[in-house]
Amino acid sequence: MIDGVAPPALISQLKIGLECDVASSLHFGATSQDLIDTSIMLRLKSCVELMILRLSDVLQTLDEMASNYSDDRVLIARTRMQNALPISVPEKLQNWRSQILGLLNSQPSYFPLQLGGPEGAARKFDIYYVDVAQQMAELLDLDYSENQWHTNRQALNDIAFWMCKTATAAGKIAQDVLMMVQSDVGEVKLTCFGQSSAMPHKQNPVLAEVILAQARFCQVQMNGMNISSIHENERSGAAWTLEWMLLPQLVRSCGSSVNNTQVLLDDLTFKG
Amino acid sequence: MIDGVAPPALISQLKIGLECDVASSLHFGATSQDLIDTSIMLRLKSCVELMILRLSDVLQTLDEMASNYSDDRVLIARTRMQNALPISVPEKLQNWRSQILGLLNSQPSYFPLQLGGPEGAARKFDIYYVDVAQQMAELLDLDYSENQWHTNRQALNDIAFWMCKTATAAGKIAQDVLMMVQSDVGEVKLTCFGQSSAMPHKQNPVLAEVILAQARFCQVQMNGMNISSIHENERSGAAWTLEWMLLPQLVRSCGSSVNNTQVLLDDLTFKG
Amino acid sequence: MIDGVAPPALISQLKIGLECDVASSLHFGATSQDLIDTSIMLRLKSCVELMILRLSDVLQTLDEMASNYSDDRVLIARTRMQNALPISVPEKLQNWRSQILGLLNSQPSYFPLQLGGPEGAARKFDIYYVDVAQQMAELLDLDYSENQWHTNRQALNDIAFWMCKTATAAGKIAQDVLMMVQSDVGEVKLTCFGQSSAMPHKQNPVLAEVILAQARFCQVQMNGMNISSIHENERSGAAWTLEWMLLPQLVRSCGSSVNNTQVLLDDLTFKG
Amino acid sequence: MIDGVAPPALISQLKIGLECDVASSLHFGATSQDLIDTSIMLRLKSCVELMILRLSDVLQTLDEMASNYSDDRVLIARTRMQNALPISVPEKLQNWRSQILGLLNSQPSYFPLQLGGPEGAARKFDIYYVDVAQQMAELLDLDYSENQWHTNRQALNDIAFWMCKTATAAGKIAQDVLMMVQSDVGEVKLTCFGQSSAMPHKQNPVLAEVILAQARFCQVQMNGMNISSIHENERSGAAWTLEWMLLPQLVRSCGSSVNNTQVLLDDLTFKG
Repeated sequence: MIDGVAPPALISQLKIGLECDVASSLHFGATSQDLIDTSIMLRLKSCVELMILRLSDVLQTLDEMASNYSDDRVLIARTRMQNALPISVPEKLQNWRSQILGLLNSQPSYFPLQLGGPEGAARKFDIYYVDVAQQMAELLDLDYSENQWHTNRQALNDIAFWMCKTATAAGKIAQDVLMMVQSDVGEVKLTCFGQSSAMPHKQNPVLAEVILAQARFCQVQMNGMNISSIHENERSGAAWTLEWMLLPQLVRSCGSSVNNTQVLLDDLTFKG
Repeated sequence: MIDGVAPPALISQLKIGLECDVASSLHFGATSQDLIDTSIMLRLKSCVELMILRLSDVLQTLDEMASNYSDDRVLIARTRMQNALPISVPEKLQNWRSQILGLLNSQPSYFPLQLGGPEGAARKFDIYYVDVAQQMAELLDLDYSENQWHTNRQALNDIAFWMCKTATAAGKIAQDVLMMVQSDVGEVKLTCFGQSSAMPHKQNPVLAEVILAQARFCQVQMNGMNISSIHENERSGAAWTLEWMLLPQLVRSCGSSVNNTQVLLDDLTFKG
Repeated sequence: MIDGVAPPALISQLKIGLECDVASSLHFGATSQDLIDTSIMLRLKSCVELMILRLSDVLQTLDEMASNYSDDRVLIARTRMQNALPISVPEKLQNWRSQILGLLNSQPSYFPLQLGGPEGAARKFDIYYVDVAQQMAELLDLDYSENQWHTNRQALNDIAFWMCKTATAAGKIAQDVLMMVQSDVGEVKLTCFGQSSAMPHKQNPVLAEVILAQARFCQVQMNGMNISSIHENERSGAAWTLEWMLLPQLVRSCGSSVNNTQVLLDDLTFKG
Repeated sequence: MIDGVAPPALISQLKIGLECDVASSLHFGATSQDLIDTSIMLRLKSCVELMILRLSDVLQTLDEMASNYSDDRVLIARTRMQNALPISVPEKLQNWRSQILGLLNSQPSYFPLQLGGPEGAARKFDIYYVDVAQQMAELLDLDYSENQWHTNRQALNDIAFWMCKTATAAGKIAQDVLMMVQSDVGEVKLTCFGQSSAMPHKQNPVLAEVILAQARFCQVQMNGMNISSIHENERSGAAWTLEWMLLPQLVRSCGSSVNNTQVLLDDLTFKG
């Protein structure tokens, strides 16, 4: 009946993400949203851990690149798309590095268990709520949250925004490469290009273009995440469904953009 | 090398969309963008034709619904979320109908052939450009365009915007159903509900929620289409890639939202 | 009580826009939304007329520029930010021209009167609705609409989208100028620059930057216009207020971007 | 020459924000962006401090409201726009409180000095950079940043995103009030309404509508802030100008939305 929408597949995937025993005990006094949001947090935690590894690799690559160029290998700093003053290669790389470092220093660390029950007040657990929720959180290696967050998407959106900033940092590197690899500029060299079907002499920096497109794509999906973050009353089916349609592709595109950035950097050399 | 991005699959699909003979002749004096943009227009034309059929069905359903209710079957008009004055069921339906009719009356009718060549000036065709382009357009049942549109995405974005407005019209119906089917309001009845896993008495209007989420989703993707519509110089790989990431899911979600609206309307009765 | 929001000032401005006599007769069987939406359409019609004049001037300027350069004044076409093949100055200008021409050929021509009454069914006018609405439309030089459009924002959003496309066309020209005026490229010359406070040798193409920023700004506001276009039931105060916050600055920034483009083109010469 | 854009006024305001002595010493080895970004951070710091006071007041109001209602004052929790199960007034308020508390617990605390010089490498300060930057930061009561952030807008966007989340939290309260104050629901009472010009019996919850519109407005502007956060090379005039057009109205609308929420809560009583 409902064609063209991911949620059913997503939900079944999410359910597999939890052990059967946990899932059934979860549903005493719990509701579908507790199951699904908890499962999303389990998955996001894995995704963030993976992203941290990738970003650490990118940082290390940037540091190795910087150490390969002496301070007198000079580039032209370009401000407002005009030549400004000389800078060294390590100084150029520093601008890329600071965003990667900023992401590593602000990595999401709060992945709360969801436990609110059908009415959002976890009434069935009565005075045992704290005990139950703390034990469940410990069992699942998630964070205990003093309150359920059925309609408070701050924790989720903070993670999504970090993903958006990650894709933006990748997009910044790609944008700079595209500017520097222009035929008339030639500050950097790539060996891995897309070929032109009509102009054999051309070397198209396709990978950098893809990274920049992925950054814009993530920024666009983030717009939707913000739109989806107002739930009416105790649960909005429409807002929640919208979140399901946006978050997976935001995370996937973000993850891919960092992979692509690693490949791009490995292929990049500064001329001069 | 480039993971997580749809374009390669999309491109191969697009190439299949053209007869081999056409494709090879297309590439004399042409470039990849001519092939791909032309193929996208062929596909969009089919999609729009399909949408027109679906929207016509929805219009007919709304007219049948209106004829089933006399003018004295009275609802309360609700403005600013407060009860206002009585209206009839046909008057209520008129508000939905006007958006569907508006879409049918403004259906996209310009699906231009793309033929610009590698440099965007179609120089290889010299004085034969008009002849060649007109014949190709006729052969493919597309529109002849006096100029190539490599960096002028108006025609494409007009179609995307029509899709966005279509999803919005569906979302308006869904939003109204969600308001009227509230337990405290009960102006309409549905028989097809989502069940609550924790509250057997509940009847969740899941389909209407999905339609509203799809409308918001399309509006979000449309934002990206606008962002992608500025190409630097004669072709932007980044802007074009972004377009590829957004347009297919905008069209698919729009198409699904109208299907879902048909199902919703078929299930809907006004009380009273 | 409600600080920081434009509507009150806007509303009073809008009311002044209508003759007192018209306003008072308008309110028989009418509602505030009839007054305000009608007034917005009156204003938008003037704005579009002004935009058409400005765009016509830009078109004429582009044609004069093209006639000043022979076909053998050669530029390099740049695709995917790489040098491609030679094109002439008139061929380059053709890409800008096609967007301006597209806007002139699709200029908004439907500015409907709003007349729906408090409940959106114009019941007080009974069988006289068509007569009254047609006469009012004629009096105000607006279009008669068969149905009120309290919750159907298609006509309004079509105009807003045309404004967004207009700013985009201006942004495309600005983006190209920024690319071509790069120190390493130098395909064009400007005489009017922003000075650098720290680097006297620099000539910053500030006007082109502003135009590009205005294009992005309009695209962002258009996103909000789409979001605001779903009204629940017969009138959404929240959606309508959002529209008021976005539309004026979208129109103003669009109008300014075309003015700025005229100044930019008047100052632009191609080298070679 | 550049009409319709705020920056010139903004810049002059920003310059006044710095003492003359500081400004002149700042410009040794510094550049306009150092001045302007530093000034923006000074202003944002004041704005955040003001927001914290307002949010603390809202939190206190919510706590007082909760203490005024016993746990047996029962509302109906509404999930997916259907009646679910009973909750108490304090449980309802808890959902609003958790977002306000989340904002207070994540208040922006990093307001870095900008000092990068014309080329973004602060070369004129040589080995004295750390000393100079630390002393300047201390003098201005800003944070010292190890690196300049001309093209790294993370710190700025983190603050903007917190503002966006703040408006979202206000919008959530407003959305709930709009749902609960519906004529058919009547879970809450307001005394302060907008009057209908055509229907004297109506009481329009205009203030809640405005708050919700402001939340959507801030989400829309945040979209633009993300778009503006990729600078090409060492400074993008276009990206920076876009930021200037969006940030002031995001901050102002966010601040107003919290003020309005305070007024709304002061006027709100739960029935029953």
